[in-house]
Amino acid sequence: MHDVLRKFINEITTGIIADDEFVHIEKGFFPKLMKRRQFLLHEGAVCKYMAFVVKGALRQYSIDERGNEHIVHFGIEGCWITDRESLLMLRPSKYNIDALEDCELLLTTKEQLSLITDLSLQFLKMSHILDSQHSISFQNRIQASLSYTAEEKVMDLMIRYPSFFNRFPQSMLASYLGLSPETFSRIRKKLLTKQYAF
Amino acid sequence: MHDVLRKFINEITTGIIADDEFVHIEKGFFPKLMKRRQFLLHEGAVCKYMAFVVKGALRQYSIDERGNEHIVHFGIEGCWITDRESLLMLRPSKYNIDALEDCELLLTTKEQLSLITDLSLQFLKMSHILDSQHSISFQNRIQASLSYTAEEKVMDLMIRYPSFFNRFPQSMLASYLGLSPETFSRIRKKLLTKQYAF
Repeated sequence: MHDVLRKFINEITTGIIADDEFVHIEKGFFPKLMKRRQFLLHEGAVCKYMAFVVKGALRQYSIDERGNEHIVHFGIEGCWITDRESLLMLRPSKYNIDALEDCELLLTTKEQLSLITDLSLQFLKMSHILDSQHSISFQNRIQASLSYTAEEKVMDLMIRYPSFFNRFPQSMLASYLGLSPETFSRIRKKLLTKQYAF
Repeated sequence: MHDVLRKFINEITTGIIADDEFVHIEKGFFPKLMKRRQFLLHEGAVCKYMAFVVKGALRQYSIDERGNEHIVHFGIEGCWITDRESLLMLRPSKYNIDALEDCELLLTTKEQLSLITDLSLQFLKMSHILDSQHSISFQNRIQASLSYTAEEKVMDLMIRYPSFFNRFPQSMLASYLGLSPETFSRIRKKLLTKQYAF
């Protein structure tokens, strides 16, 4: 599994990480297999791990006082998933993270992460590039949530993450967009009749 | 002005940046004074600068097809403001950035930023820590937009950024939260009668 992470780091940084540098990363990440429906994090617990998804899919979600689920993130192959606020500041998490499919993960802890970042410049560079990409993606999502109509939100998701539509149930995509399942379903049907390819 | 940036880098990284390292940062950032209502970025243009706010306040906003303004970010002292997607990928921006008060800024370009990040490990570390903090703040904002009621959104903003309520007009705070000015005003009055301190 570590080879996938190594390839990922090289791709993101457009460099080649040396063996003696990668050894620190290899030591700091341990493999974990998860079955569908298993939890990596429960609301109220302090998040212990940051996960690199080698295979499978997970979701990160909160449940509000009215019992509604709100999905803030889907983690698929090549993605990272964690509650960073909880992990870094040792605060009880507002989120649950569970596996939507059987998963192969590489996990690291706060302490290991700090060590790796100090010892591997390539890892630090990768983190910087990824954070930059995440920041762009978060900003787009905030802009979409503020200014898009429901139909524009569905269209935007279709353009940015078309694979989500084959991979996740409609109810989850609705939750991710902050729409009711009924509204999502109605819009999807409407777009289908316009012959957009889902 | 560069001293403020130096102090900021030292505080964030809890280190002391050496003179021969800071010289690269000093070279890469140039000062810029902006008057209230001047623009740093216009929608449709490629964003040329990343700004560190030494003094003053700016807002970053988009205008939708219906003519409504949506504020995605306020930049005040010690904040950074840019459209990263446009800056890094040279795409036309969806945003405007204008000064809400007279401002003192330090600006850098994409090329300078890349050079500084290569030459200064402290700057790279600072970027990594800030990106991490931004990521937490973005995640909270997405969660709030998905799961909070209008009243919870106003309360949350009051707790996280109390100074915004004295500094920015109600209409802008409403736009930042994705609420209509009328809803924002009604909730604010309701919270005032509950004797919350605005």
